Amino acid sequence: MTQFVRDLGEHGLLQLFRPFCSDLVGDDAALLGAMPIDRELVVTTDILIDGVHFSPVTTSPQDVGWRAAAANLSDLAAMGAIPWGVVIAVGLPPETPVEWITSVYQGFTDCLKQYGTALVGGDTVRSTVITLSVTAFGQVQRDRVIQRHTAQIGDAILITGPHGLSKAGLELLLHPELGEKLASESIDLLHKAHQRPQPRLDVPPSIWQFCDRASGMDSSDGLADAIDQICKASGVGARLDWSAIPIPESIELIAGDRSIDWVLYGGEDFELVLCLAPDAARSLLNLIPNAAIIGEAISGNSGEGFDRIDRNRSFQHF
Amino acid sequence: MTQFVRDLGEHGLLQLFRPFCSDLVGDDAALLGAMPIDRELVVTTDILIDGVHFSPVTTSPQDVGWRAAAANLSDLAAMGAIPWGVVIAVGLPPETPVEWITSVYQGFTDCLKQYGTALVGGDTVRSTVITLSVTAFGQVQRDRVIQRHTAQIGDAILITGPHGLSKAGLELLLHPELGEKLASESIDLLHKAHQRPQPRLDVPPSIWQFCDRASGMDSSDGLADAIDQICKASGVGARLDWSAIPIPESIELIAGDRSIDWVLYGGEDFELVLCLAPDAARSLLNLIPNAAIIGEAISGNSGEGFDRIDRNRSFQHF
Repeated sequence: MTQFVRDLGEHGLLQLFRPFCSDLVGDDAALLGAMPIDRELVVTTDILIDGVHFSPVTTSPQDVGWRAAAANLSDLAAMGAIPWGVVIAVGLPPETPVEWITSVYQGFTDCLKQYGTALVGGDTVRSTVITLSVTAFGQVQRDRVIQRHTAQIGDAILITGPHGLSKAGLELLLHPELGEKLASESIDLLHKAHQRPQPRLDVPPSIWQFCDRASGMDSSDGLADAIDQICKASGVGARLDWSAIPIPESIELIAGDRSIDWVLYGGEDFELVLCLAPDAARSLLNLIPNAAIIGEAISGNSGEGFDRIDRNRSFQHF
Repeated sequence: MTQFVRDLGEHGLLQLFRPFCSDLVGDDAALLGAMPIDRELVVTTDILIDGVHFSPVTTSPQDVGWRAAAANLSDLAAMGAIPWGVVIAVGLPPETPVEWITSVYQGFTDCLKQYGTALVGGDTVRSTVITLSVTAFGQVQRDRVIQRHTAQIGDAILITGPHGLSKAGLELLLHPELGEKLASESIDLLHKAHQRPQPRLDVPPSIWQFCDRASGMDSSDGLADAIDQICKASGVGARLDWSAIPIPESIELIAGDRSIDWVLYGGEDFELVLCLAPDAARSLLNLIPNAAIIGEAISGNSGEGFDRIDRNRSFQHF
C-alpha cells in the first residue's frame, strides 16, 4: 500500500530523512566546523519547482535529486571552490508518496557522495507544489577564486566539454521517435547527460597547474549566455571560432540544422567556460578530455563570430 | 497600473532585487570572505509557503519578509552564533504583484540590517505558490556553541522573555473582537510580537559574562517543545515551577483559562530557552529584562511540573 507524506507528519518525515543526513545532533542549525585560514566561504542557492524544473516524464525522482545537487555543486566548481556541505529545504503536498521523496533524497545524496560532500541540514514543510530549495557551501583559496569579471584581452576561451547534450537528452525523453537513427548506447548517453549531469569540480585543480588566474562561469544557462555574461562582466569582446565549437554527431543526427542552436542555447550542460592565458589553455587540453578552445577575448564588446550569437537568448528559468 | 512578476521576466526580477543585495559582482555563487581561525560555520535553512506559513489577513508583505529573516536569525542566536550573511530563494506565480514581492524584500532586509547582516545572494523562479526559502550563515567561537544536548543536572532553566505573545497577536489579528478589554497600546504590542519578532542575538554575549557553558535552543516551536527537546537531547528531566512561568496580563484578558496553553504551545516567540549554572542564570536576570528562571534540570526523564506538559504537542509546521 502506498504511504503518503500526510501519513507521516513533521516528526515522521524528519525520521525518514535522518539516514541521508550526516551525523548531527539535531540543533537549531548545523555546525560545520572551522575553515582553513587562507580560504573564503562560497555560497550558492537554487530553488526547483515541480512542473517548471522537473517532470516525471523526463526525470525519475532519483534524477530530480541528483540534478538538484549537481546544479549547486556546479556553481561551486564555477567559483573554483571545494564543496563543504549542502542543506535542502523541501515543500511537499500531503499527497506526495513517501517513496517518491525518499528516492529524491537518495539521488541527491548519491551525487553529494560522489563529490565528497554531505547533506548537513534542512527543513520540510507542507506546500501545494513540490519544491526543492538547495543551498551549497564551499571553500576557495583566496587567490584561486574564479569569477566572471576578470577575463583579459588575449585570453583563450576554453570549454571543458561539449554542449547541447542535456538538451538532446531532454528532447529524446520527450520525443523518443527522434532517436530512430541513433544506437541505443548513444541514446543512453544523451539521457544520462540530462538526468545525471556531472559538475566539473575536477577542473579547477587542473587549471592551477598551468596558471595563476582564470575567469569564467558554468554553462548551466547555455554556452552562448556564459560567453556573453563573462564578456559583459569583464568589459571585453570575443572572437569565436565556430568551427572549433564541438557539435556532437549524435546531436546532428537528431537536430540537423538546429544542432548549433542546441549547442549554444540548450543549457544545463554544467560545463565550465573559462578565459585564461592561451598557453595555459593549450596545456589544459591535455588534462581535460573533450575540452576545446573556441575563441579569444578581444577589446571592445563584440567581435567576429560573437556577433552571430543571439545575446538576448539565454536559458530562461522564469 | 499594477505591475506583475510576469511583466518583468528573470532578468527584470534580478534587477529589481539587486538594490536589496550587498555589493556583489553577480557570479555563480557569493563569496563571503574568510572566517577567524577560532570560529566555526553555522548554517540554518527554512522554507515558507503562502497559505501555510503566512497570510495576507495577518501579515503584510513587509512582515512576511521580516519574519522569514527573524526565524533564521533566531536559529543562529540559538546556537550562540553571530550572523554572517543570508541568501533567499523565491518561487513566484507570474500573477504576483511586483509591489508585493518588493515589500517582502524590504521587510526582509530591514530585519537583516537591524541585526548587522546582509542579503548576499539568491534565486528567483516561477512557481504556482509563493515560496520563500531562506538560508542563513553564522560564525560561532568553538567554545561558545550553544546546543541542545549539553544541559546538566542542576542547571537552571531560563527563558529570555515571556511566551504566548506571538500566538495572542495572531489570534487578535484573526479575531479583532478578542481585543475588547485591551488598551490599543497592548493590542499594538501583541500585533508586533507576531508580525515583527525580535531574534535574541543580544543574549549569547551576555551569557559568557557569567559562565563558560550553556545549553539551549530557541522557542520557535513553543516553550513546552523547547524544554522537551533539550531534556530529551541531554538525557535529563526537569522540575518546572509553574508559578514562575510568566503569563502576560494582556494574554489573560484575551485567553482566560487558555492562557497557559498559549504560553506553552503558542510558538513563534523566538525567545531562547537556556540551561546553565544557577549562579550564572541569576546574574543573567539582571542583564536581560523579562528573563525568568522557570525550573531546573534534574536526573531522570520526567519531573514535577514537567509531567503536566503535553510532550507530544509541539507547534506543527507540517
